[in-house]
Amino acid sequence: MTIKVAINGFGTIGKRVAQAVACQDDMIIVGVTKTRPSFGCDLAVKMELPLYCTYDEPDKIDAFASGGYDCKGGLSDLLAIADVVVDCSPGKVGAQNLEKYKNAGIKYIFQGGEKHAMTGMSYTSCANHLENMNVQGTRVVSCNTTGLSRTLVPLYEHCGELSVECTMVRRAADPGDSSKGPINAIKPVLKVPSHHGPDVMTVKPEININSMAVAVPTTIMHLHVIVATLPEGHGLTTESVIEMWSSKPRISIMNGAETGITTTAEVMEFARDMGRPWGDLHEIFVWEDGVKLEGNTLYYFQAIHQESDVVPENVDAIRALMGTESDWMASVAKTDAAISKTASL
Amino acid sequence: MTIKVAINGFGTIGKRVAQAVACQDDMIIVGVTKTRPSFGCDLAVKMELPLYCTYDEPDKIDAFASGGYDCKGGLSDLLAIADVVVDCSPGKVGAQNLEKYKNAGIKYIFQGGEKHAMTGMSYTSCANHLENMNVQGTRVVSCNTTGLSRTLVPLYEHCGELSVECTMVRRAADPGDSSKGPINAIKPVLKVPSHHGPDVMTVKPEININSMAVAVPTTIMHLHVIVATLPEGHGLTTESVIEMWSSKPRISIMNGAETGITTTAEVMEFARDMGRPWGDLHEIFVWEDGVKLEGNTLYYFQAIHQESDVVPENVDAIRALMGTESDWMASVAKTDAAISKTASL
Amino acid sequence: MTIKVAINGFGTIGKRVAQAVACQDDMIIVGVTKTRPSFGCDLAVKMELPLYCTYDEPDKIDAFASGGYDCKGGLSDLLAIADVVVDCSPGKVGAQNLEKYKNAGIKYIFQGGEKHAMTGMSYTSCANHLENMNVQGTRVVSCNTTGLSRTLVPLYEHCGELSVECTMVRRAADPGDSSKGPINAIKPVLKVPSHHGPDVMTVKPEININSMAVAVPTTIMHLHVIVATLPEGHGLTTESVIEMWSSKPRISIMNGAETGITTTAEVMEFARDMGRPWGDLHEIFVWEDGVKLEGNTLYYFQAIHQESDVVPENVDAIRALMGTESDWMASVAKTDAAISKTASL
Amino acid sequence: MTIKVAINGFGTIGKRVAQAVACQDDMIIVGVTKTRPSFGCDLAVKMELPLYCTYDEPDKIDAFASGGYDCKGGLSDLLAIADVVVDCSPGKVGAQNLEKYKNAGIKYIFQGGEKHAMTGMSYTSCANHLENMNVQGTRVVSCNTTGLSRTLVPLYEHCGELSVECTMVRRAADPGDSSKGPINAIKPVLKVPSHHGPDVMTVKPEININSMAVAVPTTIMHLHVIVATLPEGHGLTTESVIEMWSSKPRISIMNGAETGITTTAEVMEFARDMGRPWGDLHEIFVWEDGVKLEGNTLYYFQAIHQESDVVPENVDAIRALMGTESDWMASVAKTDAAISKTASL
Repeated sequence: MTIKVAINGFGTIGKRVAQAVACQDDMIIVGVTKTRPSFGCDLAVKMELPLYCTYDEPDKIDAFASGGYDCKGGLSDLLAIADVVVDCSPGKVGAQNLEKYKNAGIKYIFQGGEKHAMTGMSYTSCANHLENMNVQGTRVVSCNTTGLSRTLVPLYEHCGELSVECTMVRRAADPGDSSKGPINAIKPVLKVPSHHGPDVMTVKPEININSMAVAVPTTIMHLHVIVATLPEGHGLTTESVIEMWSSKPRISIMNGAETGITTTAEVMEFARDMGRPWGDLHEIFVWEDGVKLEGNTLYYFQAIHQESDVVPENVDAIRALMGTESDWMASVAKTDAAISKTASL
Repeated sequence: MTIKVAINGFGTIGKRVAQAVACQDDMIIVGVTKTRPSFGCDLAVKMELPLYCTYDEPDKIDAFASGGYDCKGGLSDLLAIADVVVDCSPGKVGAQNLEKYKNAGIKYIFQGGEKHAMTGMSYTSCANHLENMNVQGTRVVSCNTTGLSRTLVPLYEHCGELSVECTMVRRAADPGDSSKGPINAIKPVLKVPSHHGPDVMTVKPEININSMAVAVPTTIMHLHVIVATLPEGHGLTTESVIEMWSSKPRISIMNGAETGITTTAEVMEFARDMGRPWGDLHEIFVWEDGVKLEGNTLYYFQAIHQESDVVPENVDAIRALMGTESDWMASVAKTDAAISKTASL
Repeated sequence: MTIKVAINGFGTIGKRVAQAVACQDDMIIVGVTKTRPSFGCDLAVKMELPLYCTYDEPDKIDAFASGGYDCKGGLSDLLAIADVVVDCSPGKVGAQNLEKYKNAGIKYIFQGGEKHAMTGMSYTSCANHLENMNVQGTRVVSCNTTGLSRTLVPLYEHCGELSVECTMVRRAADPGDSSKGPINAIKPVLKVPSHHGPDVMTVKPEININSMAVAVPTTIMHLHVIVATLPEGHGLTTESVIEMWSSKPRISIMNGAETGITTTAEVMEFARDMGRPWGDLHEIFVWEDGVKLEGNTLYYFQAIHQESDVVPENVDAIRALMGTESDWMASVAKTDAAISKTASL
Repeated sequence: MTIKVAINGFGTIGKRVAQAVACQDDMIIVGVTKTRPSFGCDLAVKMELPLYCTYDEPDKIDAFASGGYDCKGGLSDLLAIADVVVDCSPGKVGAQNLEKYKNAGIKYIFQGGEKHAMTGMSYTSCANHLENMNVQGTRVVSCNTTGLSRTLVPLYEHCGELSVECTMVRRAADPGDSSKGPINAIKPVLKVPSHHGPDVMTVKPEININSMAVAVPTTIMHLHVIVATLPEGHGLTTESVIEMWSSKPRISIMNGAETGITTTAEVMEFARDMGRPWGDLHEIFVWEDGVKLEGNTLYYFQAIHQESDVVPENVDAIRALMGTESDWMASVAKTDAAISKTASL
């Protein structure tokens, strides 16, 4: 059986998930949606993905033809031929879509911009793949939560308990977004603690975590500054923590002094050398020489490619919901190997 | 008695300390030094400050005349007529100067770029003014340490103990420095924990503090993200912490939502409206709506004007060393009132 | 006679014009307006300027009292006691205000955000002070037009004709504005030629000028890249052009290599050393070593402090409209001397 | 015959040229050089390119083995098996290399960082491919000169003469370079006129051009602001100029208002959607709605991807020097088609 996947929304995340799904051998894209015949449709055409309208109104569908695009129908038409829909629409419109997905009787996956309460279930491969097996719908957590889970879940699994404070230094705008600032300022997120850290508990409730956030004038990568308190008798050292992370998927751990990768700029240049579409980095990046375990306190930095670390997670979530692969490590390996083959370098 | 103050070094900090000292009624500037007859001498001329050469070699002194500046002599000449010297030379050259100051038999104040070990004594008005009374030399701690002391010392004095984790989001270059980057990157300081936080213990050893730091592409203000663990029975609330800080000097605490001051950009604009020379902000800035006490954990943000928060501290340190004012609150009030009178607005 | 000046609007430009007017000995501020009892009113209180409401509705006026501010009345009340109003309201609302000013029977000055057609008269001291003598209303041209006039008018007056192409490299946001981007992009103004250059012809119609503009991610200063074609027989050299500009008011011309002032960052740091309120630079800045006359083509760069170069022009425009000083050089000298005395350094 | 190509230097340009050459069917990479066994060697390994040492000293060659890399020999060994070498070493070391290339008796191509005088011949496909047929060595001009040639050469060929003023708004650092500033400043290049524009005359001496340059705090793309004076009787309109450019290779001309591509950020996002390695854009980008012909004066903006627009030109230059393709349009079409096939999207 090949899983038939619909992508509702074809922007920053939607286009990436479409590419990642399209290159897997156990699933195909049956269609992607756009709201109107805009410039962004050209990419769907180029990627040879069937194009649908986000709406069902005939005039909105017909508008695509006037724009020179072949639109196959409305959202309902697309849902009717899909097994699962990945909702990549802008944040906060998910609630309206949920009803449509339920009515269509198909499985659904939302992104981290939506609230956990909407689906009652969230997903990150390393945290709770098994719990997501065969459920009707889930939410792939945000780029930040995904990144935190990658390093914290292994720690938790080793230690049995964990208390974490995280400062999130966030890029203020995506690379293709020229409207947002600030240009020369640091912006604290005054809601304290921020929602980012506690969201980890939607996939691993046992991890006790708080966070604070600031936005800074960059366009590439969030950077997390993490202080984790381990329980007495944790039996770890700085070196064994590094070794643990090195053995896990989707963590790239490198020495800044040796590689010259000392800022998020060099991290993204390293990612460009991988040749993945959009120069993406699905792994989180940890600086080996920035990890330090002092007594029970573990300090480290990690960088998150905000546009893409959740992309392969959506592929794995599809397999969980469809019940086709219960071993998360197997799914991740399969997903990542297929994506690697599409790299240009 | 009017205290005769020499300023050795007339750059970012030196020029500001000179202005702050010059407007006090109990001290005068007997001279400032420059290494050579450069453009920067014009400001000393404009401020009507006697100009000396950083070196004693006659040819270096004579060079000033060729450049059209009236140079009164070398460093030794200046030290000979001073009661106290404030060393504002670039970091790491202090050690060489120390010997000269000792030989001249005058009191000396270094800046936070030098190590505590060099003087064995450090200074922040709110932390240890009394301990600095009549000592021969001290070090005014860095802008970051000064800022941390302003909020942490009152907390410590109330609680009796304190354990702090601080993430420092640092501006990468000063406003007048166009050579440094990064332009579009976040740079973690891989030495973990960083030296910044623990430096607080040079003025208040009882405060247990660690820090991590990142540099970001801005030119104005450092921002501290602070998580402080208070002891059981601290008896504080979010409101009472705010009230405590509001009653202390050199803390400006405002509500971001009410004032529209939501980033470091608006903080510095607020400072410009004060009309102090260089648009300086000697106070640290705390966002009232970014303070939150949950159980024993206190979360808050504070912003530090890296160019100027230590400036009035140097004035107070002079009084401590010269033994002319033992009450730190009295000295601070006197210092700040005199500076206020020089504002252009 | 002391000229009674109202300032309608007390933001970036309004507060500066108020300061510049207040320190002159031939005029006084009778009031400034704010739309509501916001944080910005504190500055008016601090500067001891009578506060009025932008509107006449009693509830809007009364709101100030609830906010703790002493509001003297509505706009009509203010206009009734003024000889001249300087309109510093946000761009595009000027048209509505014009009627009110006419009804009040007082003189009025708009800023460069309004169109020339609205008043039919524009003003820059060096270009057309005399033509503005005793007129009812005028418009002080924009920061860019003001800056262009400073260097181009003397050239025109010497050469008799002039053809100019100007590329404007514009800061994207003001220093206190954290909402605007871009963070990492250059934005061409696609309307070609841009409106900026030709606006010079509203004050000096004989200068033939076109311009193109780009916005870049900085907050301080516009930079003009200028190519001027002089007529045959102009009789100038690179040196004589520099000399000509050096002899004019409100042009600061310096050598980048000698002073280390190589970017707009160092220019603004130089301005901060002047100690004017807000660290303002009323002069335009020309790099001496960036001026080059080759045959009939003159190349040069100039930097414009977008927040302030028009500020003293408003003072001079008041004198022109009130008919109290017909010699522009005399007015400029008087204006600038009075402002200098308010500097903190 | 398959052309055997050596790449001396494997950094920003070298790695790109290697990829572009490697995917052509008429040439192969026989080796690339690195100075030492650094992190950058990993990319050569990944791309399966034979690795050589930039130097011939045995200890420097042996160092690679200690670093875990298989180094095939020194530069001399590489030159001995190559037909042509593309010098991609850092600017200004080319002169030393020239002698080695001559001694090896092979053809050589330098990059735009070297002076024209060194080779006495420069190259841009659209300007002088034919003149480069079978020459011993040449220089592919810089990214800026290449970009200027793309739009100016067709104009010149139509008009017969052309006089151009260009303002270059330059990105201050490449995306992977976090050391350079400025962060919040505009930096004029005080050498006036700059060397950039006149360099066009090394490939098309008949075009009369001057330029001025400023650097701004961005990492992506240079932007050119161009004013070209056409001769009387040019017979062109805004529309026909656009049409002319649309028909030429390696020019991408789009409407900013229609596509939402309004800054260099969106241009580079458009490039990422192409899926080429590193998200490169080999075409120059012209905004259709930013082109305006008024009388004899043509105004337009173009954006240049500084890391990559010269990359395919190197491939074409190889064919010219080796004498295998005399038709520049045929070479360009072949080059670009082969590169397109390697895209990940």
